[in-house]
Amino acid sequence: MNRKLIIRVLGALLSIEGLAMIPAFLITFHYRDGDTAAMGFGILVALSVGCAMYFIPKTDRNSYLRLKEGFIIVAVGWILMSLCGALPFVFSGFLPFFQDAFFEAVSGFTTTGASVVTNFENFPHGIMFWRATTHWIGGMGVLVLTLALLPKLTGRTSHLVRAESPGPSLSKLVPKTGQTAKILYRLYIGITSLEFISLLLCGLSPYDAAVHTFATAGTGGFSCYGASIAAFDSVAVDTVITIFMFMFGVNFALYYKFIIGDHFKAFWKDEEFRCFFLIAVTFSLLITLFNLPYYKNDFFTSLRYSSFQLSSIISTTGFVTADFSLWPVASQMLLILAMFIGSCAGSTAGGIKVVRIAMLFKLSRRNILATGRPKKVDVIRIDHKAVDEGIVSQVAQFAVMYVALVFIGAFLLSLDGKFDVITQITASLTCVSNVGPGLGAVGPVHNFAGYGIFGKIVASFLMLFGRLELLPMFILFTRSAWHKY
Amino acid sequence: MNRKLIIRVLGALLSIEGLAMIPAFLITFHYRDGDTAAMGFGILVALSVGCAMYFIPKTDRNSYLRLKEGFIIVAVGWILMSLCGALPFVFSGFLPFFQDAFFEAVSGFTTTGASVVTNFENFPHGIMFWRATTHWIGGMGVLVLTLALLPKLTGRTSHLVRAESPGPSLSKLVPKTGQTAKILYRLYIGITSLEFISLLLCGLSPYDAAVHTFATAGTGGFSCYGASIAAFDSVAVDTVITIFMFMFGVNFALYYKFIIGDHFKAFWKDEEFRCFFLIAVTFSLLITLFNLPYYKNDFFTSLRYSSFQLSSIISTTGFVTADFSLWPVASQMLLILAMFIGSCAGSTAGGIKVVRIAMLFKLSRRNILATGRPKKVDVIRIDHKAVDEGIVSQVAQFAVMYVALVFIGAFLLSLDGKFDVITQITASLTCVSNVGPGLGAVGPVHNFAGYGIFGKIVASFLMLFGRLELLPMFILFTRSAWHKY
Repeated sequence: MNRKLIIRVLGALLSIEGLAMIPAFLITFHYRDGDTAAMGFGILVALSVGCAMYFIPKTDRNSYLRLKEGFIIVAVGWILMSLCGALPFVFSGFLPFFQDAFFEAVSGFTTTGASVVTNFENFPHGIMFWRATTHWIGGMGVLVLTLALLPKLTGRTSHLVRAESPGPSLSKLVPKTGQTAKILYRLYIGITSLEFISLLLCGLSPYDAAVHTFATAGTGGFSCYGASIAAFDSVAVDTVITIFMFMFGVNFALYYKFIIGDHFKAFWKDEEFRCFFLIAVTFSLLITLFNLPYYKNDFFTSLRYSSFQLSSIISTTGFVTADFSLWPVASQMLLILAMFIGSCAGSTAGGIKVVRIAMLFKLSRRNILATGRPKKVDVIRIDHKAVDEGIVSQVAQFAVMYVALVFIGAFLLSLDGKFDVITQITASLTCVSNVGPGLGAVGPVHNFAGYGIFGKIVASFLMLFGRLELLPMFILFTRSAWHKY
Repeated sequence: MNRKLIIRVLGALLSIEGLAMIPAFLITFHYRDGDTAAMGFGILVALSVGCAMYFIPKTDRNSYLRLKEGFIIVAVGWILMSLCGALPFVFSGFLPFFQDAFFEAVSGFTTTGASVVTNFENFPHGIMFWRATTHWIGGMGVLVLTLALLPKLTGRTSHLVRAESPGPSLSKLVPKTGQTAKILYRLYIGITSLEFISLLLCGLSPYDAAVHTFATAGTGGFSCYGASIAAFDSVAVDTVITIFMFMFGVNFALYYKFIIGDHFKAFWKDEEFRCFFLIAVTFSLLITLFNLPYYKNDFFTSLRYSSFQLSSIISTTGFVTADFSLWPVASQMLLILAMFIGSCAGSTAGGIKVVRIAMLFKLSRRNILATGRPKKVDVIRIDHKAVDEGIVSQVAQFAVMYVALVFIGAFLLSLDGKFDVITQITASLTCVSNVGPGLGAVGPVHNFAGYGIFGKIVASFLMLFGRLELLPMFILFTRSAWHKY
């Protein structure tokens, strides 16, 4: 194993994390909530450890990373980043227990948005801004960011992007991975700015706008208010965020195609986008319909809250404007289905991903129709292109492992012993799919603060498994990952 | 499509159902509960319609069934049988609404054991006996029975057995399907008799012993008491039924091998049995442990109820001696996992089946270990024999469709609008896996009586989908199933 190169890459990662803490550090001077030292120490640790790891080992110019090493870097990198990202929370004294701070950092970086914070009123602005920053960085991926900034760090870099990026395939926009990473981040910054301006125009303070923009962009869901987006109680804000949550659930490659000349064709030509749009609209309308009695038959009120909540859940953001645990059960069931489905591959969102769901749907249809004519096997097509049978089979296996992880996770969470069955199942699902809220005791008006140490650690790992799409984390737990080879 | 032959086979099926009603008919004379006419009419309809369908169409001696026709016969046959089997319930006036009677008949034949009966005290003995009989017939399969009695009915019959029998592959015991069917039924009768005698020795009346033996043998779970097995409150009865529930979850081919000279080696040499045994024992002990506080730290009481309930759920029987919805959540989560897993292929039980779970486990392990060495693909082995990659892939697809059906079923049930999320999810799961009880409003001390017409029909179809392992029912809903070809 190329240990030296791995350490260098991890060092670069931590250094970039340290740099990413600087905006939050600067904000502490403006609000003077007493969190300057906490953020400062965080930066100090991240930068010093990061630089040491980056500069001390000597690597060959021709050294490169194997696929498996890529997976290991990603898994270890995300854990390391979360450990380091938890430091400001601990130092500030607002999440004094490390398991809480770690949970919050993991939830931030994995863009889950599940929280253990209970004292939102007193929370210092700088630390809160750092919490939002983790979403923004985690959304597009820290390794993608590293590659955008340091494209020459390693020889073959596509492994890293593949291991970190959600979805079955990140279509390369341009031949070089480093270049792709740069384009992705430019798009990301562009759409983020667009939302920031929109929220300013809705009347939010720059701080509120920034925090909630970061949380939307990463499809995270951390708010600086206990009531989440309901705190603003504004139709304009709800509408803007509903639209942007959906937008951040779309494959970023489509925005690139949109800009370079395909315009709206880029979207309609993409099968995954069409499915995503169809599912989102159908589910929104059904939930609006089911919720009509709850909203006293006021269609627009029902549409406002229903479409917001569906957009929030299917994009795996997890913002809340309504306590959907009080909605009709049929609406809640659709939200649970949406949690499994998630958004498009190549977006910042989690879940099984629409393109996989589309493949599985086509696979099931083929299974049913092919009975009785076993010799003829129809090819499964996405965007009119035949999908390799090996990939189709892997997608089915991925879905099986995903669902198994949700239920095994629910069992492990239940060992914590506090909550009912539906809490445990949706807690596990919301973690693996990186959504945020679940039902029951982790419902929209509650959070994960009630779990014990064991439950919080299990939940943290479920989030990491989900964000990295299972394999990197699983590999970390195999013996062969730690062998010399 | 060979319509005439299909009609003849269905006719044979109905005639056999009519004959199967005769024991219940005779019992009405002994108890004189006023249900003689109801059972009599049932027999009349089944036999007259059945014989007409069997004898009127003229078929070629050389005509045979294609695979797809086999699937269609099985799907239509099971629906027809349930429609006809519902008649005595309706005629007796105790389940006057057809949707209730149909639900009860489907639940009986699919060996689910979910019930809508609320007036157990007044229920006539004959009708109750018929209700138990449906379990016994449904367990091994009606078409298997038809083939055992009428082996010359169609030319190629393995299709029918394949479509009706649970599990990825019914290992043929002897070359001829008809012969295999006879052996299976002999074994079935043998083990059933063994349980009947055991229960008599425990002090049960012959009627009670017969009803509960039928329900155990089919892994169904209908009891003639509202309190299920808890009504006897006997350690001996609990123990006997715990053991027999487990036994009926084992592949019947192993009993055949046991008898023809392999003795206990037959079991230990079988990988699926070893897994099943391991899962059952591990889960039982874990649940016993988790339940210790609930049973005031009395190990044997906890073991008694925990192992009974685990055996009942994993064998998809659904008998109840304890209200497990009051148990610790970790125990409930294990029961939910057991509902998904089910028992061995080639048994009378439902669920995804242990052999499939074992394959999926090995597949996931291979996925994880194979990363980084994509050229080498390890073969997946069951019983030291390589499993064809096509079958492995189909198993993953089956599991995906299974889980999807459970959640889509839960959504459809929730349209009925009465119960909470956990009720809907476990109701759907318990139907698809043919278990019986779920949690919440369909928990161990409740049943499906609370659902409306829509919910009952959805639940009935979920049971049929589960019992026939999805494909036959799905094919019934395709357009091509009804084309002439």
